[in-house]
Amino acid sequence: MRGLMMDVPLTVRMLLDRAEALFGDREIVSRRPNRSVHRTDLGTVVGRSRRLAAALQGLGIERGDRVATLAWNHHQHLEAYLGVPSMGAVLHTLNLRLHPDDLLYIINHAGDRVLLVDEVLLPLLASIPDLESKTKVEHIVVMSQAETSIDDARPRADGYLDYEQMLAAAPADFEAPAIDELDAATMCYTSGTTGRPKGVVYSHRSTLLHALAVSLPDSLAIGEHTVCLPVVPMFHVNAWGLPYACTMAGAKQVFPGPHMDAASICELLASERVTLTGGVPTIWMGILEHLDGGEPGYDLSAIEMMAVGGAAVPEAVIAAFEQRHGLRVVHAWGMTETSPLGTVSNLGPRHAELSADEVMSLRSRQGRMVPLVEVRARSDDGAVPWDASTMGELEVRGPCVAGAYYDDDSQADRFTEDGWFRTGDIVTIDPEGYIRIEDRSKDVIKSGGEWISSIALENAIMAHPSVEEAAVIPVAHPRWQERPLAVIVPASAEPAIEIDELREFLAPHFASWWLPDAVEAVEEIPRTSTGKFLKSALRERFRDYELTDS
Amino acid sequence: MRGLMMDVPLTVRMLLDRAEALFGDREIVSRRPNRSVHRTDLGTVVGRSRRLAAALQGLGIERGDRVATLAWNHHQHLEAYLGVPSMGAVLHTLNLRLHPDDLLYIINHAGDRVLLVDEVLLPLLASIPDLESKTKVEHIVVMSQAETSIDDARPRADGYLDYEQMLAAAPADFEAPAIDELDAATMCYTSGTTGRPKGVVYSHRSTLLHALAVSLPDSLAIGEHTVCLPVVPMFHVNAWGLPYACTMAGAKQVFPGPHMDAASICELLASERVTLTGGVPTIWMGILEHLDGGEPGYDLSAIEMMAVGGAAVPEAVIAAFEQRHGLRVVHAWGMTETSPLGTVSNLGPRHAELSADEVMSLRSRQGRMVPLVEVRARSDDGAVPWDASTMGELEVRGPCVAGAYYDDDSQADRFTEDGWFRTGDIVTIDPEGYIRIEDRSKDVIKSGGEWISSIALENAIMAHPSVEEAAVIPVAHPRWQERPLAVIVPASAEPAIEIDELREFLAPHFASWWLPDAVEAVEEIPRTSTGKFLKSALRERFRDYELTDS
Repeated sequence: MRGLMMDVPLTVRMLLDRAEALFGDREIVSRRPNRSVHRTDLGTVVGRSRRLAAALQGLGIERGDRVATLAWNHHQHLEAYLGVPSMGAVLHTLNLRLHPDDLLYIINHAGDRVLLVDEVLLPLLASIPDLESKTKVEHIVVMSQAETSIDDARPRADGYLDYEQMLAAAPADFEAPAIDELDAATMCYTSGTTGRPKGVVYSHRSTLLHALAVSLPDSLAIGEHTVCLPVVPMFHVNAWGLPYACTMAGAKQVFPGPHMDAASICELLASERVTLTGGVPTIWMGILEHLDGGEPGYDLSAIEMMAVGGAAVPEAVIAAFEQRHGLRVVHAWGMTETSPLGTVSNLGPRHAELSADEVMSLRSRQGRMVPLVEVRARSDDGAVPWDASTMGELEVRGPCVAGAYYDDDSQADRFTEDGWFRTGDIVTIDPEGYIRIEDRSKDVIKSGGEWISSIALENAIMAHPSVEEAAVIPVAHPRWQERPLAVIVPASAEPAIEIDELREFLAPHFASWWLPDAVEAVEEIPRTSTGKFLKSALRERFRDYELTDS
Repeated sequence: MRGLMMDVPLTVRMLLDRAEALFGDREIVSRRPNRSVHRTDLGTVVGRSRRLAAALQGLGIERGDRVATLAWNHHQHLEAYLGVPSMGAVLHTLNLRLHPDDLLYIINHAGDRVLLVDEVLLPLLASIPDLESKTKVEHIVVMSQAETSIDDARPRADGYLDYEQMLAAAPADFEAPAIDELDAATMCYTSGTTGRPKGVVYSHRSTLLHALAVSLPDSLAIGEHTVCLPVVPMFHVNAWGLPYACTMAGAKQVFPGPHMDAASICELLASERVTLTGGVPTIWMGILEHLDGGEPGYDLSAIEMMAVGGAAVPEAVIAAFEQRHGLRVVHAWGMTETSPLGTVSNLGPRHAELSADEVMSLRSRQGRMVPLVEVRARSDDGAVPWDASTMGELEVRGPCVAGAYYDDDSQADRFTEDGWFRTGDIVTIDPEGYIRIEDRSKDVIKSGGEWISSIALENAIMAHPSVEEAAVIPVAHPRWQERPLAVIVPASAEPAIEIDELREFLAPHFASWWLPDAVEAVEEIPRTSTGKFLKSALRERFRDYELTDS
């Protein structure tokens, strides 16, 4: 027996129509490249997204074609978020921090036909080798966010199209195609630490479901009262889906443009009375330092939640924000492959009885699965218990989780036979379902059949005053298969720490068999384009490192 | 180009699995028939719902079969909500306020194979004529909510199955079938004022989407902190979907059992620290009277929202709750055909600048469409403008809106050619999208091509001290086609009001052509099973009423 509800697909166009009907007057604020602040409203943005869609149709773009963006967070990028999927094309956001060779690979692999690029990123575009000869890109459209009037417009000297001129010349609306909710809406490539970037293709359905799930009271609580500043880039997993959720709810949206330094962000947080912001730990650590520096006394009292994801933020940073600045940092976990929101570390009413230390320990976990996401963790022995101590690889499942990569058969081992995605994250899960990322599966140290978290050791080592940075990697061991090697960057003017002192320093916090067997000093830890430790390079460097049986 | 997300259907079983993994310790509180309070937890409820599903499989119930309930709000009913759809059967909730003949019709029409019935409702069951000979019901299972131990259990003398004995004998889990999200999950018949009841069949998909939409911050804001007491019966549009949303969020759920009087409800609201409750205006008006009566000083300070739907509640009642008791009544609108949540009258941040009167006027509207619902209003001239004054019939569209009735071809005129559902409600929509129900389409008075709201007149007439109740109906008029006739029940010991006095009383509030042409006194206004005015009976009684051209 079938249900007898209407067959109405979940599509991005729903958000356009809803925003236009209910929330036309909501403010959309962007910082321009020249640092001035641009203000418009959601009704105007939706109207312009319709013109963008019509202009793309005029360029011959059809349902399923890919339209790429190489852009910071601003209102024109939001217009592309709404307009491109609504006319049936696929929005492909390019990560501007990637190497030009990788950008060329991605643009080619995705088959992008149009490229919307920020004027300030034209030098980056120019650095992409043989863009016009080696890809299918037919049109390059430049978004300048300039303060000049459209009336003064002239054709660009470089022959590229101008975004504002294109919109001014376009019909006010596009021809709306029938869209199936399983059609592609957007795509994003993961910047993995190994191998070629892999494309994740979000459907209209997953985009809408994610917008609902991320907005729930126990997720990021997005409503009409929300003022959201996504520090997370719009080229990174659709800025966590915040632009879609905020458009659905009629929230005010604030975009930092290319100015991602702590002072510029803090200014906007204060002046626009931001209630919700989200980004990676690096950003928050920079902002903490800025605030600790006693800068001009920003009024950040409107902030209800600073969501952090992409990597673990140390408990001390969460505590510092709370105790020194009254700001609530909330951990979340997700991946490009999970749309991204997988878990959020909000606390429930029953946690009111916990001590401050217990609360902080729970909040430093990455949280519990949001609705529509299922999690489990497995080790070589099968599913691990939710006991807060047994480590296993996190696997996830749900309608907003990738089931395959775009045009890539090499990744079949990322999916289990029973249909779960293997995240590559090594976690523990506590009895209430709060997960903690303990390591990446390729970084975890497998010592005599037991697992040692490299991340836990790194965080502890970096608390030593003579250590600036530390990475812990596995090296081969004749008896234990692998043992931890600590690779450190000494703090300036400090001598490198000796292994005995390091082990003594760590001993109170870890089982003895967790302690590193050796330490090596280096000048710097290699990093990925997104600022994460590139441990594969370290492992390669220390591949033949010899440990004696201790 | 297709999205590459996992093909994971939205199903009620997701809620079981989620609740079990994360929220097993959440309290589920029910008032028993003997007035004592039963306490269990969500983990136990989910475990028992699995046993129920297994027991039903043991009775031969298969995917798509209908399992009916005739029950008040309590934990066993919640178990049926979760267990029946999870094993692929369809939960059919019977409205215990219907006439036994209608119940027989519905049980027959739906083809129910099993009937779960409250012990206290066995007399009602016995009143249904020829239940066992004239329907497909094979098993009757009695839910007693008794305090006796299962160890003392004996077979029932009446030959019916005992719910607790059935669960105790069942396997701990059921064989989970593959469920398509478009499969039927639950069904509910509308108790219309005319014609036979019509069956609405909710899919797993619509149930999950509705649970997400109803939980959003600007809908009913359901999270882990929520303590929800649905006064709205679980046989009425799945208690507005609250049990599903609360199970998804891990909220505490409080059920009043058969004790729906104001004192019993207020006791539970206070003792369980309820934050969210919802019901029809009749309930709140009774509770307002009870609170105004200076009853024992309930502490209702935990309440964040009293949602009201099903009919319009007068602005004065909203104001009275707020000013005299500090309680926030929030208007919502929906129908059995809309799952039900269609609109909610929450205010946005920009309404902070309105005067108290303007705020109250806005809050007395039924609110704005929630995500996934589209609304429009049409009159004979086509779509009406959103100007807060032009009346049109409300039409809605969305994945949680009925596209057809179960096994009923007679209702094709309820759906437009372009795929919208005609609600039969006459509304105005203000420029911000807030709708106001002005009338039912069959009750609106069409005078000389213009529409007059019978409800607006009734509310105004009932404010007259000599009037107890009033209904306004159209009667034929030689020149204006229809004109309003006021049918009143005089307040006790008062003479019936004369037409001239009535018109003078109403004149300051309405255009002169809105004023009734005549008034007739009656002893009582006939009502439907759900307590609404049965105006069709009045129209029949005054069918040949003669007005002279005035």
